[in-house]
Amino acid sequence: MKESWSAFDTFEPHFRPLVVIELAKDTKEETKEWLIQRIVDKKKNGGAQLLVKPLVKEDGGKIDGNQNLYLVGASHLRLLLGAETVGLVKECNDNSMRTFTYSSRNTFKDFAEDNHDFLTMAERQYIIKHEFENLRARDERMIPGYPQAKLYPGKSIMRRLLTNGILLQIFPLHDTEELKKLRYTWYGQVKISYQPLDEIRCYFGETIALYFGFLEYFTFALVPMALIGIPYYVFAWEDYDKYVMFASFNLLWSTVILEVWKRCCAIMTYRWGTLLMKRQFEEPRPGFHGVLGINSVTGKEEPVYPSIKRQIRIYLVSLPFVCLCLYFSLYVMMIYFELETWALDFHEENESYFSNLMLFVPSIIYAVVIEMMNRVYRYAAEFLTSWENHRLESSHQNHLILKVLVFNFLNCFASLFYIAFVLFDMKLLRQSLATLLITSQILNQFVEALLPYWLQKRHNKKVKKRVYSIKVDTDLSLFEQVNLEKEMGTYIGTFDDYLELFLQFGYVSLFSCVYPLAAVFAVLNNITEMYSDALKMCRVFKRPFSQPTENIGVWQLAFETMSVISVVTNCALIGLSPQVNSIFPDSKTDLILIVVLVEHILLALKFVMAFVIPDKPRDIRIKLARLEFESLEALKQQVWATHLGEQMY
Amino acid sequence: MKESWSAFDTFEPHFRPLVVIELAKDTKEETKEWLIQRIVDKKKNGGAQLLVKPLVKEDGGKIDGNQNLYLVGASHLRLLLGAETVGLVKECNDNSMRTFTYSSRNTFKDFAEDNHDFLTMAERQYIIKHEFENLRARDERMIPGYPQAKLYPGKSIMRRLLTNGILLQIFPLHDTEELKKLRYTWYGQVKISYQPLDEIRCYFGETIALYFGFLEYFTFALVPMALIGIPYYVFAWEDYDKYVMFASFNLLWSTVILEVWKRCCAIMTYRWGTLLMKRQFEEPRPGFHGVLGINSVTGKEEPVYPSIKRQIRIYLVSLPFVCLCLYFSLYVMMIYFELETWALDFHEENESYFSNLMLFVPSIIYAVVIEMMNRVYRYAAEFLTSWENHRLESSHQNHLILKVLVFNFLNCFASLFYIAFVLFDMKLLRQSLATLLITSQILNQFVEALLPYWLQKRHNKKVKKRVYSIKVDTDLSLFEQVNLEKEMGTYIGTFDDYLELFLQFGYVSLFSCVYPLAAVFAVLNNITEMYSDALKMCRVFKRPFSQPTENIGVWQLAFETMSVISVVTNCALIGLSPQVNSIFPDSKTDLILIVVLVEHILLALKFVMAFVIPDKPRDIRIKLARLEFESLEALKQQVWATHLGEQMY
Repeated sequence: MKESWSAFDTFEPHFRPLVVIELAKDTKEETKEWLIQRIVDKKKNGGAQLLVKPLVKEDGGKIDGNQNLYLVGASHLRLLLGAETVGLVKECNDNSMRTFTYSSRNTFKDFAEDNHDFLTMAERQYIIKHEFENLRARDERMIPGYPQAKLYPGKSIMRRLLTNGILLQIFPLHDTEELKKLRYTWYGQVKISYQPLDEIRCYFGETIALYFGFLEYFTFALVPMALIGIPYYVFAWEDYDKYVMFASFNLLWSTVILEVWKRCCAIMTYRWGTLLMKRQFEEPRPGFHGVLGINSVTGKEEPVYPSIKRQIRIYLVSLPFVCLCLYFSLYVMMIYFELETWALDFHEENESYFSNLMLFVPSIIYAVVIEMMNRVYRYAAEFLTSWENHRLESSHQNHLILKVLVFNFLNCFASLFYIAFVLFDMKLLRQSLATLLITSQILNQFVEALLPYWLQKRHNKKVKKRVYSIKVDTDLSLFEQVNLEKEMGTYIGTFDDYLELFLQFGYVSLFSCVYPLAAVFAVLNNITEMYSDALKMCRVFKRPFSQPTENIGVWQLAFETMSVISVVTNCALIGLSPQVNSIFPDSKTDLILIVVLVEHILLALKFVMAFVIPDKPRDIRIKLARLEFESLEALKQQVWATHLGEQMY
Repeated sequence: MKESWSAFDTFEPHFRPLVVIELAKDTKEETKEWLIQRIVDKKKNGGAQLLVKPLVKEDGGKIDGNQNLYLVGASHLRLLLGAETVGLVKECNDNSMRTFTYSSRNTFKDFAEDNHDFLTMAERQYIIKHEFENLRARDERMIPGYPQAKLYPGKSIMRRLLTNGILLQIFPLHDTEELKKLRYTWYGQVKISYQPLDEIRCYFGETIALYFGFLEYFTFALVPMALIGIPYYVFAWEDYDKYVMFASFNLLWSTVILEVWKRCCAIMTYRWGTLLMKRQFEEPRPGFHGVLGINSVTGKEEPVYPSIKRQIRIYLVSLPFVCLCLYFSLYVMMIYFELETWALDFHEENESYFSNLMLFVPSIIYAVVIEMMNRVYRYAAEFLTSWENHRLESSHQNHLILKVLVFNFLNCFASLFYIAFVLFDMKLLRQSLATLLITSQILNQFVEALLPYWLQKRHNKKVKKRVYSIKVDTDLSLFEQVNLEKEMGTYIGTFDDYLELFLQFGYVSLFSCVYPLAAVFAVLNNITEMYSDALKMCRVFKRPFSQPTENIGVWQLAFETMSVISVVTNCALIGLSPQVNSIFPDSKTDLILIVVLVEHILLALKFVMAFVIPDKPRDIRIKLARLEFESLEALKQQVWATHLGEQMY
């Protein structure tokens, strides 16, 4: 790693740039000086005690115009103390995972006073981000030079600078050597292998590694469904028993995979230390505003926004708006069905190869329109959720996810529900399902893989032009690298990636007994998805800050809800199928009662399974219990050592 | 409180007896000496550092024969340190709840060095129990004097003494003054009032107070159901709309009350401090046996029993046995229905007042048989669960509760399900429900109230005879009190009380739309139940050790499951009712589909409500968040104070 910063090492041996700060071009000198001073200042004076250097050209000369890019680093000791502050969990010499403390540093695996790689680069960047967020105003009432940028004691300085447009961005630097290695192991080889999740985690942090872990797991989990689905397609099995068997297998399988995922997730996050990491106190999100008041939790001054106002905005504006959008979406769906009927009539009137193709046109148009509506609605949802003014990022995210999920669910599946349970047309259902699935996959692959590939090509050209003066095959200089990276897009999180998987899971499971081939397409799509997402992370976007996480959060709930809904739909579909109906020619009532009974049994079975399968594997539970036991024992020892000693008797 | 121990105060001013130890009559002197030594010994020597006195007669003379009753107490300082060890949470001067530590003792409300009532008597007894359980063998290989009672380092001495029959029992003493006060406020007055939950908690501990809290809450929660139910009975409303309205109200109401209970429970346990109390490490339960091995959590030597063996016992013996019992229970039910038919035939043949009465006989017999089967099965379940050899008391309890719940559920409700969904006989259902409910309530009241009352009368006589030599209206002497209390029955926990409420909840909610009067009977029963349970706790049983708890545990889940099942049964009952059937005279299919749809919507609504209603009220959440914030801040301060100071720069 040292090599890649070699240019910099020449004039400050111990400074390794980790994070870049970009200020607005016209930032006043006074403000810059104040900010740098606050960042560099000692902790006891309320500073962050970090190291800052302006970004300079290789030849040592200042760049033209104002200096507005700064490199931030920290001493090794500072980073270790920061690791203790954020509560990092690392592996000990005895292979157990423990919260890192500076005083117990020698018990940790690979720790040595001169081993500057004890913390991964992602961890070091996370620590610096954390210190930045906790750099707080003391007695300043405003940002020096910007009287309109008000401060109050305890206000995060970086957030105020960001919201006032003085600070353009803070982003962590790529490590070109490490990235090259990662790219090679991740998608550089042709051989099929597991994804290098530990390496991804070291480089990009836990949230992203967990997404790739879930993507890989989910793809493997779909393989049995896909394998069983193929003969159904090939031999066109439509017998009652085979049908029901496939659906039942799918339903139980989807419960099993979601439960087992929790265990896999626990194994991974235990290894990464985030399973044990204590939740940090959550600060207000950057966009949150309100009148200055006293926070009832911290007892400190900060903007306060009455909960009742937020409730009014949610229930009187957001909720009606979402309902209106849902109604609009259903309206569009009805138009689609009119188009569909028209195409069918056209096909019947003039039967030809062209008219045959025309049959697919409405579905394709509808799929494209759905995709567009989803994207437009997404912006509206983001605007509304911001306007609801949630105090915490997590609450903001949950409200956003809920809004987007409901709409996407309806948008993607309403037409299929309509075909299945209003039109009762299984053939059309199968055809629509196939069209929707394949169209959305192709669209997504285009947006996520082809577009980035094209962008990257353009990037490469730009880079080559710039670097042409130097030798072409060497690494970029730090100056070049920073200037290139700051122009790259910002990765806005795993939301869209999970959403895509969620909708795919819907296509596969909701109507699985009608179109067993869906799983095959899903598997194929996910394999390319892994590569395109990897490319996206490594080449297209700025490096994101690492975000420790112990699970996939609300998505687990979303997937579980989908799997419950799919029990209902699949049972209903089986009940509607002509094969099953022919078994009960006389009494439709009996048929319905049996289907309802089976559905209830399956649902009960799901809940029992979810209850019986432990969320964490036995060995992880033992390890966690051991840690808890140790801390309790330590507490008891402490009580007796502190107070009793010899003093009592 | 001081007054009641006045007799003792005369010869040792600071010793207050809290707990009584009863050894076997023939315990060797050597063992007694060793045990006393271990209890009295200093903590650093591995003792419990408590105070012990043999129980002596008032006149100072030794009692006849061997001394086998000992009184245990502790110094005030010792109890405060013990409070820190068990992690007791108390109220501070600023009204917040905090974990008690000896060093911060002056910040706690009502704390004064000479205030010996800072800890409630239940808390002091709990601390002594905890210290007893943690009195562990050091280098002893056996109990002195009993070579067959093996010890190993770390084995709890008291548990070994108990399992070898040397120690007969340990029980906390009643405080006659306090008990008198409590009895007066609890059930001594004629006026209707809330139960004195805080006083109950101070005297009996949190588990029992929480049971009475739940009982009271549940009774109040049933009142609206009862009030709405009465006009249905009086005016015999059987219209479709009123019917459905009542059922829907019940279903949503039962969800609401269970959710709101969680909030009430959080409010109470926050006030009592148990909501914040850290879970202690759970020791193996007394009956647990196995070969000596290394516990993988503690790393200490203790009996180990392979999990696979336990699994085999559970799945190959217990499960088949439970299924067999369930089958037998169903068999008995079929006999009941034969009897029922026979009685009906008899009534039709010779119609008379007698034959009319005879109609009720099978139901009554069945109710009695059910009650008996429940009790017999209970013993079998306890035996089997012990034989499964669970390591932890909690796991033992959960397996026992599961076994007993499933059987009781089937036993009590199978016949009602049979009548409702096989015979379709709503009139018989109503009649059976009424008979079962009323019979089981009368039986329970007899076993829980009349029987104890009679026992208490007998007790009183015995007491009077003994005390006759002294003045009749004074308090009992300590000697007399201990000797009386040691003969009292042991309260085995809240299991049966919760079970009774659970079954009652089943009678009220499962078939609520058929028999709206059930809630009325439940309310009436619960009011007397409160008094009889209070009597039982104060008069019939030994004082139980306090057991800190933060909620009603697995019973919350059991009640919630019951309320889900009741959605299904009520929807089915409405679908079956002739009023509803007459609305859909042509198409039974439509009817069923609508019922199923409504059921699914209600179930979804239940889950959404459970999700949306927060488990803890806002102010409790804020208080918890404040504590968490403070501990995180303290941690950060500590990091910088310990390591950085001035040393870094």
